[in-house]
Amino acid sequence: MKHNSIGVFDSGLGGLSVAGALRELLPAEDIVYFGDTARVPYGIKSRRTVAQFALEDARFLLRFDPKLIVAACNTASAVALDVLAARLPVPVVGVVEPGARAAVALAAGRPIAVIGTEATSASNAYPAAINRLAPAAEVFAQACPLLVPLVEEGRACDDPIVRLAVASYLEPLRAAGIGVIVLGCTHYPLLRAAIAESLGPDVRIVESGRETAAAVRTALAADDALCPAGRTGRLRCFVSDNPARFRRIGSRFIGHEIEHVELVEPEDYAVTAVEPVPP
Amino acid sequence: MKHNSIGVFDSGLGGLSVAGALRELLPAEDIVYFGDTARVPYGIKSRRTVAQFALEDARFLLRFDPKLIVAACNTASAVALDVLAARLPVPVVGVVEPGARAAVALAAGRPIAVIGTEATSASNAYPAAINRLAPAAEVFAQACPLLVPLVEEGRACDDPIVRLAVASYLEPLRAAGIGVIVLGCTHYPLLRAAIAESLGPDVRIVESGRETAAAVRTALAADDALCPAGRTGRLRCFVSDNPARFRRIGSRFIGHEIEHVELVEPEDYAVTAVEPVPP
Repeated sequence: MKHNSIGVFDSGLGGLSVAGALRELLPAEDIVYFGDTARVPYGIKSRRTVAQFALEDARFLLRFDPKLIVAACNTASAVALDVLAARLPVPVVGVVEPGARAAVALAAGRPIAVIGTEATSASNAYPAAINRLAPAAEVFAQACPLLVPLVEEGRACDDPIVRLAVASYLEPLRAAGIGVIVLGCTHYPLLRAAIAESLGPDVRIVESGRETAAAVRTALAADDALCPAGRTGRLRCFVSDNPARFRRIGSRFIGHEIEHVELVEPEDYAVTAVEPVPP
Repeated sequence: MKHNSIGVFDSGLGGLSVAGALRELLPAEDIVYFGDTARVPYGIKSRRTVAQFALEDARFLLRFDPKLIVAACNTASAVALDVLAARLPVPVVGVVEPGARAAVALAAGRPIAVIGTEATSASNAYPAAINRLAPAAEVFAQACPLLVPLVEEGRACDDPIVRLAVASYLEPLRAAGIGVIVLGCTHYPLLRAAIAESLGPDVRIVESGRETAAAVRTALAADDALCPAGRTGRLRCFVSDNPARFRRIGSRFIGHEIEHVELVEPEDYAVTAVEPVPP
């Protein structure tokens, strides 16, 4: 069990930021990553469709006999973690709960903002998770639909369009006196400098992916399932479309070239392979 | 045959701008529209995956016995029209050829620009179609990945982020002395005023969707398959996900409320229903 891999799935390539945080914290672990690049993005889709896709993604990972599965996609974590936990035979860790926990710890009573996709914001998953931990906390959820395409286009934090878009989303949050902002989307850590500059030094930034890596370490340690130190873990990636684009853009998310990327055929992951999620 | 509907498919809701142009030009015709909102967008995906999805979309429309099918999606038209034409039992009209034809007619020898998604630009379909008609024409293809999310977020032509993004993409084209620009994506007509302002009055604008509506009229007239005038055609829409979002954002593309929107189940359109497209 200790040497089994950690499975990570995402709607596309963004989850590589979570895989990167896992590799930094747990360098001995093998990671098997599935990116559903044929059906990306999930953030503009319905709960039911996202749950169905997430279940298919996770089922694909099961063939590698993982010791734990990480739902790296914030949208999938926000709308489908219950379905995943109920239907998968291994522990599932999402990114919402770890992000919420860190936010509450850092807020010291000040309001908390969460930025993410349309679907993550509409789900209310982050505010609900935060208020379970801190019932009195004031939480603002803001959808930022332009930030993913800005990152994928390769625009950097000093790009004028990035600065204008970030300011347009964050200025109302700054004005509301937030003390913490949760980056509730895998792409946003790449815009961290622009976000920090827009909000100023008094606002603490939580990256859900990093917090999730810590939660995975805790969960595996509790099960005595961590790989022994000294080993060098391996990252293998599988995608449902366009490995070249995944490799090209994805390397910026993980900070190095991605060596192993394989294309998966539709019949190996899609639709008919799992029992439908009810409406 | 005359009273059979025109089938229109798109990766999502953008094709409603093409459906709108059809309704304006051919108000007597019934239209059945399929938007693949579960797997939208196509513009960042591989040729093979787009061809597979497009074929599934078109096959779904066949159950309505259409007299003609329009590939309203520029990406699908650019990378998959040959596959569609070879495999479907009814005539298929794409948006690339009509857009290219109009551009050549208006260019009067000046350079032509085509803007679209990553996949449309990478396919080289528009430049190839233009150069088949005018071998000496100089053509610039520019991907504009931010424009679709800007439109879907509801930002208008006077929004500062829209103006900055449009300027960033178009300034090099203006400097190159283009005489015509083809809006090679279903979303771009909603940004027409910003594009026109950025390029100035000397650059003519071609909307592929409008040109396609004219091509459909010509094709149906040649087959004596136009509905008799005086009738009021009906628009029925089917989507693979999120009818509420389709209705809400889509009404801006067609200029009126969308009355009939039905959700289609995965087993009725997806993957296993058609023979795979070879790599």
